[in-house]
Amino acid sequence: MAGYSLNTIEKLIEQLMKLPGIGRRSAQRIVYHILETDKEEVSALTEAIIDVKTTVRFCSICNNFSESDVCGICNDVKRDHKLVCVVESPKDVEIIERSATYNGTYHVLLGAISPLEGRGPHDIKVDSLIERIKKGTIREVVIATDSDTEGEATAIYLTKLIRPLGVKAMRIGIGLPVGSNLEFADPATLARAIEGRREL
Amino acid sequence: MAGYSLNTIEKLIEQLMKLPGIGRRSAQRIVYHILETDKEEVSALTEAIIDVKTTVRFCSICNNFSESDVCGICNDVKRDHKLVCVVESPKDVEIIERSATYNGTYHVLLGAISPLEGRGPHDIKVDSLIERIKKGTIREVVIATDSDTEGEATAIYLTKLIRPLGVKAMRIGIGLPVGSNLEFADPATLARAIEGRREL
Repeated sequence: MAGYSLNTIEKLIEQLMKLPGIGRRSAQRIVYHILETDKEEVSALTEAIIDVKTTVRFCSICNNFSESDVCGICNDVKRDHKLVCVVESPKDVEIIERSATYNGTYHVLLGAISPLEGRGPHDIKVDSLIERIKKGTIREVVIATDSDTEGEATAIYLTKLIRPLGVKAMRIGIGLPVGSNLEFADPATLARAIEGRREL
Repeated sequence: MAGYSLNTIEKLIEQLMKLPGIGRRSAQRIVYHILETDKEEVSALTEAIIDVKTTVRFCSICNNFSESDVCGICNDVKRDHKLVCVVESPKDVEIIERSATYNGTYHVLLGAISPLEGRGPHDIKVDSLIERIKKGTIREVVIATDSDTEGEATAIYLTKLIRPLGVKAMRIGIGLPVGSNLEFADPATLARAIEGRREL
């Protein structure tokens, strides 16, 4: 509305556009929705945001999101605490948990090594992983960082660091996705799939 | 995370999913973004939402969004107050303003007549439009409701109501969009375009 635009609306649009996946159009639609919604409903939204921000912190053991000092997984005696799966972000924990096949614990790096973006091992939670391993109760580490350049670099770096500590350092399988077709696989994936072949 | 999911995160996801265009996936990404963002940034967002909700109201003349009793357009003496464009929502005002060709004022109906959804003329701002017209200063009303069934029904209803008051009731042009191609036009649009033909 050029000369007639409302400051408060414009400010909210700008704030919403900082969220992932929200462009100007979606931000405008959200603003109109907020304006048309009951005050109570809108308060429920802002309170939920504030709650998350004040309640959720990182688990002091594995860095996963937690509402208490130690997260539910680290606190669960039924899980295998000798097995640690290393992931880049709390989102990855959720993805692996959804597959319902893993019963070990986690270590969230909160990032990956990226020389291009100037992110080294000390900018992610590598030191606390090594400390956990040095306590001597961990038998195997499964490195489940992404299969992109950063994830691969992080996996290689961690393997070199973990092996001398006498702990098994494994990388998750990389290859053809289940239910996929050879013709859809890119050459790099195919090469890794053949390299990582196993006996049946 | 099935058994480990955090209440506060789950609540925020549910709240975010009530916003238009936000599914579970996008909601999760927004939650992770919020958790990774500075507290100050997040406060800026919640405050912007609260500000909009407490500051923005409907203009007492045209029902457009406004930060004061009367909106900027209704207050602008340089605009033609004898010409009123009737639209369904404040969003439509913004769209027309962006085209920068209209210099009259507006009347926002805050909806359209929809027998299917049980919305009649008294559920939208028709009465206040008629009151404005009866004051005798308006010369022409341009009905710019949508060209869907509800918008058309509303336009026909308004025309019947306005004409007896001695005021020109016009409907915006409906036909081929600028820069389009005859072969892309649907039969209904083509029929309306031919029906609404004008001399060059």
